[in-house]
Amino acid sequence: MRLNQTINNNKTDSLVMKFNIEKTSDSVLTSARHKIDMKTKPRGSLGRLEDLAIQMSRVQNTLFPAIERKAAFVFAADHGVVEEGVSAFPQEVTQQMVLNFLSNGAAINVLCAHNNIDISIIDVGIKGDMAGHDKLISKKVAHGTRNFARTMAMTREEAEAAINVGASVFEKQNKAGKIDVLAIGEMGIGNTTAATAIISAATGFTVEQCAGRGTGVDDEAFKHKIEVIEKALKFHQPARTDAMDILCKVGGFEIAAMAGAALKAASNGSAVVLDGVISTSAGIIAYLINPVVADYFIAGHKSVEIGQKAALEMLNLKPVLDLDFRLGEGTGAALAINIVEASCKIMCEMATFEEANVSGIEK
Amino acid sequence: MRLNQTINNNKTDSLVMKFNIEKTSDSVLTSARHKIDMKTKPRGSLGRLEDLAIQMSRVQNTLFPAIERKAAFVFAADHGVVEEGVSAFPQEVTQQMVLNFLSNGAAINVLCAHNNIDISIIDVGIKGDMAGHDKLISKKVAHGTRNFARTMAMTREEAEAAINVGASVFEKQNKAGKIDVLAIGEMGIGNTTAATAIISAATGFTVEQCAGRGTGVDDEAFKHKIEVIEKALKFHQPARTDAMDILCKVGGFEIAAMAGAALKAASNGSAVVLDGVISTSAGIIAYLINPVVADYFIAGHKSVEIGQKAALEMLNLKPVLDLDFRLGEGTGAALAINIVEASCKIMCEMATFEEANVSGIEK
Repeated sequence: MRLNQTINNNKTDSLVMKFNIEKTSDSVLTSARHKIDMKTKPRGSLGRLEDLAIQMSRVQNTLFPAIERKAAFVFAADHGVVEEGVSAFPQEVTQQMVLNFLSNGAAINVLCAHNNIDISIIDVGIKGDMAGHDKLISKKVAHGTRNFARTMAMTREEAEAAINVGASVFEKQNKAGKIDVLAIGEMGIGNTTAATAIISAATGFTVEQCAGRGTGVDDEAFKHKIEVIEKALKFHQPARTDAMDILCKVGGFEIAAMAGAALKAASNGSAVVLDGVISTSAGIIAYLINPVVADYFIAGHKSVEIGQKAALEMLNLKPVLDLDFRLGEGTGAALAINIVEASCKIMCEMATFEEANVSGIEK
Repeated sequence: MRLNQTINNNKTDSLVMKFNIEKTSDSVLTSARHKIDMKTKPRGSLGRLEDLAIQMSRVQNTLFPAIERKAAFVFAADHGVVEEGVSAFPQEVTQQMVLNFLSNGAAINVLCAHNNIDISIIDVGIKGDMAGHDKLISKKVAHGTRNFARTMAMTREEAEAAINVGASVFEKQNKAGKIDVLAIGEMGIGNTTAATAIISAATGFTVEQCAGRGTGVDDEAFKHKIEVIEKALKFHQPARTDAMDILCKVGGFEIAAMAGAALKAASNGSAVVLDGVISTSAGIIAYLINPVVADYFIAGHKSVEIGQKAALEMLNLKPVLDLDFRLGEGTGAALAINIVEASCKIMCEMATFEEANVSGIEK
């Protein structure tokens, strides 16, 4: 485990400096809007596809946004809080599903292959040992978090290490080939519990307003899940705007790593497509560390998990897709990337009224 | 113009016989549901993608649905009713935009290229002459419809001819290579007026409940558009369940052709992705001719045009995308096809719990 020893007192401030993200340009926004208004279609008639095209122009600081390389990072980790009986699936499923990812058998594999997205699977804190898998990126910070119903989920050093895992994976992959758009996904039995706690802590919405059934707990277990989160938040009292405090108290290693990857992606001018409730909770953590990151965020899809709504409101994002997903892994983000790509092509390839010799609106 | 002389008295019944469509199988539905429930994900967690996968299994009558060839047909025609001042754009834009399609400059060209969809542009009733374009499929039934504010939009022979254009284009293209999924799109200045009249006539919703601003008329012109449609429906009194009566009185050639293509596609076991309000009004016409066609329909996207909602309710369809589009051409359908493809791959390529050795939900 590699700790960042240079960070001492105000560690969140140091992280902001570390993740130096350029604000996207307002002048590009204006010229991109003008450019798309000249295309052969009634103004605004491609709705949100136009908004995405303009955002991609801002993110890439060009009127010719293009997506060459697409990547998805799936961070996996375990959660001590599953001891409390908050998940419908047993904890070993984290490890089993990671093996499934490595064998290309999961939904995220199918959807990444479908949209030509390079997928990376990262162990940032799986409980079991994951020896001998050459396709797995092994960056285990610890063998799962501690049970946040009883103690801190992780130390500050662990939280920073997990953020650094995300950042370093992005850095390495981006060197191998510039990543234009990154989907951040995850696997971790119990992680809707952590994500719900983070979102409730950061947004101020009650746990009941943020909690969903995750992979599918029944009524009784759902009620229990809400109680576990409520008690934990009451016990820990995380500081609402302090990403590191929230992470340490109720977070997850994969959530910290997703936040790190998102921050590093944005600081390299890559768009970041968020997935469901867990991925969006990582978006919140990244946003609390450096709010400029939100300029680079695209909400891939609307989750069935209601906590995502509160998180998206805080980030001022509207999801691209609404297909009643509640799987995670990055699946909604991977599907949405096709639409983000389409938006760039609309900006670059469509003819203008003038070029095509088409009459405009009658005055 | 080729007329179908064999159809005489009860012409709609003859059309039903002509478009013999097999009801999709309930037993495939059950086995497809079972198959997808065995995949490595919580049951139902891929939401509408699972529904699409099951529908594609039914449409193709197999547990291994696959999409090889994707096609988009863009039917273009003019509308006499534009004399009444119902459109924001001048009538010559139909012809100009078709030239734009032929030069690959329009949104539909960009989106079809993006998703590897073979595009065909068909003149089924453009007012102007379209000589010398080898990429254009020339099947002009007439030089635009007549102004339905004053007289019938078309004769019954013209309506049948236009339906046959759609069917014959499908037949020919399908022979060149089996089409697994077809997007039906259109171009025709004034055609939201015709579509709104059709939808109001068939659903019983008032014109006000169905009318939108099309390509963007202002308040005054919008009010006028509603009045024109209301007066026309009052004058013609189309029979609510008679597709041919509605088409002749207030229809359009491109709408009739889309209906014909959809019916022919369904009778050949191809899925049909509807686009916006005009494409969906063609779906209504096809449905009134043979309701079994709806088993093969997928609603590509939710249009800003409110009339589409009434039409989708009648067809019992829920749109795949909701991106605030109001362009037509087939743009929403072309984008949605990527998601339909993804659904087939989920059904075929994902591992089961057993194959991947992943534990199920704890009892």
